[in-house]
Amino acid sequence: MYTDTTKIRVRYSETDKMGYVYNGNYATYYEIGRTEMMRSLGMDYGKMEETGIMLPLLDLKCKFIKPAFYDQEITIKTTVKDLPGIRMLFDYELFNEAEELINIGSTTLVFFDMAKQRPCPPPDYFMERIAQFF
Amino acid sequence: MYTDTTKIRVRYSETDKMGYVYNGNYATYYEIGRTEMMRSLGMDYGKMEETGIMLPLLDLKCKFIKPAFYDQEITIKTTVKDLPGIRMLFDYELFNEAEELINIGSTTLVFFDMAKQRPCPPPDYFMERIAQFF
Amino acid sequence: MYTDTTKIRVRYSETDKMGYVYNGNYATYYEIGRTEMMRSLGMDYGKMEETGIMLPLLDLKCKFIKPAFYDQEITIKTTVKDLPGIRMLFDYELFNEAEELINIGSTTLVFFDMAKQRPCPPPDYFMERIAQFF
Amino acid sequence: MYTDTTKIRVRYSETDKMGYVYNGNYATYYEIGRTEMMRSLGMDYGKMEETGIMLPLLDLKCKFIKPAFYDQEITIKTTVKDLPGIRMLFDYELFNEAEELINIGSTTLVFFDMAKQRPCPPPDYFMERIAQFF
Repeated sequence: MYTDTTKIRVRYSETDKMGYVYNGNYATYYEIGRTEMMRSLGMDYGKMEETGIMLPLLDLKCKFIKPAFYDQEITIKTTVKDLPGIRMLFDYELFNEAEELINIGSTTLVFFDMAKQRPCPPPDYFMERIAQFF
Repeated sequence: MYTDTTKIRVRYSETDKMGYVYNGNYATYYEIGRTEMMRSLGMDYGKMEETGIMLPLLDLKCKFIKPAFYDQEITIKTTVKDLPGIRMLFDYELFNEAEELINIGSTTLVFFDMAKQRPCPPPDYFMERIAQFF
Repeated sequence: MYTDTTKIRVRYSETDKMGYVYNGNYATYYEIGRTEMMRSLGMDYGKMEETGIMLPLLDLKCKFIKPAFYDQEITIKTTVKDLPGIRMLFDYELFNEAEELINIGSTTLVFFDMAKQRPCPPPDYFMERIAQFF
Repeated sequence: MYTDTTKIRVRYSETDKMGYVYNGNYATYYEIGRTEMMRSLGMDYGKMEETGIMLPLLDLKCKFIKPAFYDQEITIKTTVKDLPGIRMLFDYELFNEAEELINIGSTTLVFFDMAKQRPCPPPDYFMERIAQFF
């Protein structure tokens, strides 16, 4: 299992007329969690794309527990519970400044070879770095 | 059961560097499906909010089958399978111009009294309009 | 001079906690105006990109006259006043349902050859279609 | 004159199919610049809204010099050149990691009393804090 936490601050543009963070923006928060989790492993998602491998989503699940508000600092805890194969599952827990759990989510992503236009195994250097945690 | 379909055209702003519609934008497509489904029942979600009742999300699920691309016309099919109570479940199916199913999703929403800050039953006028389909 | 009008409906996701359309979303409305103006000339911006020419922005100006609100139908009037060269200037006027002018904007775009990574003249087929209006 | 700098990292959701940051997202970067500039003065824009005063935009100008790319760290330099009155003008300069100037912008905002629905002078506590820099 591998876990990383990062923080974001809610932007005005992310709120809606209800005064809450708009539901679709949690997908972006999850993406930030993934990017920073990979960086914490010494990996660079952008560079992986330059080598011709991308990681599109297969599914996304999101449970809204409490609203998030403008200018709050939100903690994003991103966890990979199983050693990735062609697919990689991320779990997310979001906390507000009072350390209350406000949102739970998960996404399944697939390593995808852009040239061959089909799923592929993760790059070796990626597996070497993440394998030590499993 | 009640079903409504509406169409949107993919905006440049909705694409990402992968060339696909960014995953978080499907939540917005679902929202458009809900708004238009309600309008097709002679209802106005904005007016309901003005009476002090809003409909925040409890959960969101999204399955990505095929990517959507810039300028494609996407058909959003929104279905309510069960008569709503305090909670209302919407299902979504998205189709591209070749009539291929590209995305499946669902959301659970809760009628919420803004003044009392707690869940409430749906407005009577809403139930009268939707009940005839169940 | 060439003018085209198109309509959009304000999405919930486009509002912010002020209850207005968030200021950054007008750039997207302008983009829709451009796409539809080009389509009205029988052109397809996506296809032009596939031939290796894109149209990035050089500048954007926006004047906010009245707010736009959720679910309003907004009319986007897009005008090209001068025959395009390497640069193309678009003007925008946005109107609400009461036909009030709510926003004025302009953008300068540049035809850009992706392979050569430098500005280029507009494609011949584009100039032939638009030239008749000047 | 008062200047503050803050940094953001470009999100995947902010890119478009051109591979650049979508033009409309610079408005959000400017908003972050304003929020953080105010915070650096010991002020909280969210709290000001709770007292019934908001700061909608009157205009926005944006000049795109070089593109910004996914995962780049962008420095936002926000400057107020003149002591604010009912209107407040912000200037922005954005720099990439190579310290190249990539974007210049400005926005005019107006202090607006939500209850009276009309422009108003800035709050006294705000003027006291900012006046010392002019």
